[in-house]
Amino acid sequence: MNKNILNLKKYETDNYRYKYKLNANESPFNIDNELLEKIALGFKCINFNRYPDPDALMLRKELSNYIKTDFENIMVGNGSDELISIIINSFLSENDLVLTHGPTFSMYQILTKVKGSKFLEIPFENLDIDVDKIIESANENKAKMIILCSPNNPTGTVISKSDILKVLKNTNAYVLVDEAYIEFGGESVVDEIYNYDKLIVLRTLSKAFGLAGIRLGYLVSNKDIVDILLRVKAPYNVNRISQYVAAELIKNREEITNKINIIINEREKLFKELKDIDGLYVYPSKGNFLLIKTNKSKYVFEKLLENKILVRNFNSSLLKDCLRITVGSSKENKILINVLRDVMK
Amino acid sequence: MNKNILNLKKYETDNYRYKYKLNANESPFNIDNELLEKIALGFKCINFNRYPDPDALMLRKELSNYIKTDFENIMVGNGSDELISIIINSFLSENDLVLTHGPTFSMYQILTKVKGSKFLEIPFENLDIDVDKIIESANENKAKMIILCSPNNPTGTVISKSDILKVLKNTNAYVLVDEAYIEFGGESVVDEIYNYDKLIVLRTLSKAFGLAGIRLGYLVSNKDIVDILLRVKAPYNVNRISQYVAAELIKNREEITNKINIIINEREKLFKELKDIDGLYVYPSKGNFLLIKTNKSKYVFEKLLENKILVRNFNSSLLKDCLRITVGSSKENKILINVLRDVMK
Repeated sequence: MNKNILNLKKYETDNYRYKYKLNANESPFNIDNELLEKIALGFKCINFNRYPDPDALMLRKELSNYIKTDFENIMVGNGSDELISIIINSFLSENDLVLTHGPTFSMYQILTKVKGSKFLEIPFENLDIDVDKIIESANENKAKMIILCSPNNPTGTVISKSDILKVLKNTNAYVLVDEAYIEFGGESVVDEIYNYDKLIVLRTLSKAFGLAGIRLGYLVSNKDIVDILLRVKAPYNVNRISQYVAAELIKNREEITNKINIIINEREKLFKELKDIDGLYVYPSKGNFLLIKTNKSKYVFEKLLENKILVRNFNSSLLKDCLRITVGSSKENKILINVLRDVMK
Repeated sequence: MNKNILNLKKYETDNYRYKYKLNANESPFNIDNELLEKIALGFKCINFNRYPDPDALMLRKELSNYIKTDFENIMVGNGSDELISIIINSFLSENDLVLTHGPTFSMYQILTKVKGSKFLEIPFENLDIDVDKIIESANENKAKMIILCSPNNPTGTVISKSDILKVLKNTNAYVLVDEAYIEFGGESVVDEIYNYDKLIVLRTLSKAFGLAGIRLGYLVSNKDIVDILLRVKAPYNVNRISQYVAAELIKNREEITNKINIIINEREKLFKELKDIDGLYVYPSKGNFLLIKTNKSKYVFEKLLENKILVRNFNSSLLKDCLRITVGSSKENKILINVLRDVMK
């Protein structure tokens, strides 16, 4: 057996009772009714008995319009999770090292362990990401891959474009930049894929596009890398319905732009309100979530749950005393703030 | 880079022009209209913006009714491909060996290569699978995993239950039994999962259930194995819509039983008709497909294509001169036979 597996725990997905789900950085907005009616008509015309298009051409062409890149530079997957796994399987052997900053998205470590490769997280106490430290450690440890998450989950910290390019210029590693939350803030490096041999940008429709339910991630890179990854992916990795729904949403993306603006406004409002609560520290965030720190985080988590609000708590030492709150609908955020004010009195 | 990757070619999915698709062992039957209307109503109630149930509880409970096994013995995946990959990642290191019979489903080899592990295919010239040879070679080469496909794709050969149990009793390997085509014939070993430590049975909804488009595979094993595999799988590996559509189809499975009977009858009719064509050898099959052999297979393939019929051709030496024909609808099979009779004149 892969020895790493024995240390793995099942990924935590909470079995709490709640009414307001602010724990998974999902969008508060479902597909609008009018568009959903249209999509449901197309749904009835799907050939469920036929395998999906292995090249996901229609979807990749819609994505290429959206991000203004050739569709041949794009690959789609069953969520970002599958794409990270394909990237790791393609470029790493068991003795190779993946390096990232910490705290960050836990799946990087889990998927590296599943591969059986080595993993190193450079901790940042103040949650500001110092790329010089990353470059130094990557070169010292001959890292095969560096993962940068910007805006970073769960801190909301942004790594500037110039810092990301600095990492690319000063290391020999593949650099995977996870831009899952990029629609909410920060600088994308998608337009740099033609300039670097080893840059891979990861995106998702789970956040700004509000499609967490269909599992659709995509990556953008130069054609040499995409060609290798396409050989490694299973032929029918994205099902027909997800390909179809995703393409329709991207085609009709004006409504998404509005929703993103609403969420950004709500985040800024929530940030100010949280800042005014005594005993809470709130980190500035460019994601659709806010990380707060309080020495009574366990108590706060439970009190919120008593009020049917589920937020995200953590076990890791780097996130001691921290809770991550997803920006919800205006109504949800108001309820949250009222309960928090009460709890922190 | 994982050196195995360099030798991988992109999985062939044919870009031919055709009207009759008999190349991918898909069901000729889409979901019935009445059921589809009902499913489309539920589709409109899906929370697309929320992640799917990581435990796929509703679906696993429907599957447990279908195969009469506790739902905790079942795990679902994004097609069998993902499940094979999770199994390989869980139980194999780079130096370990996967052993199978040949010819068989090509994804076993591809996914083993992606992991970076070793792969050995025991060839069977007459296409009958001799488990004594498999046992001998597995023990000699200390195989970590043995994959048995029954009914075997692409030959249609069945491995008897007693032969499979013989392999389990006489080796130390994990034994993965792929029952993708079991609804069309052969003996399932699902009811043996409680009796063996290392037996994993793989199933799919892509064939008999006619749901290739939604990508839904499942595996059945003892709880210790399922517990390990659940730790390795990505939390949200099966999207909301596929979970929902699959559960609805299994709940309404009477219509599936009828369709399976139609396909089996068509297969037997097609077998007799193919047998009567001079210059063709047809292998007895318990799948929803028939393997034929003719020394003018390339010519036959092209002539069929001229008549808009797409069947499956192969590159491997074990399948020299062979074509695999999926059992289609009654109408498709008639057209196929007429063209074949003409071509072979």
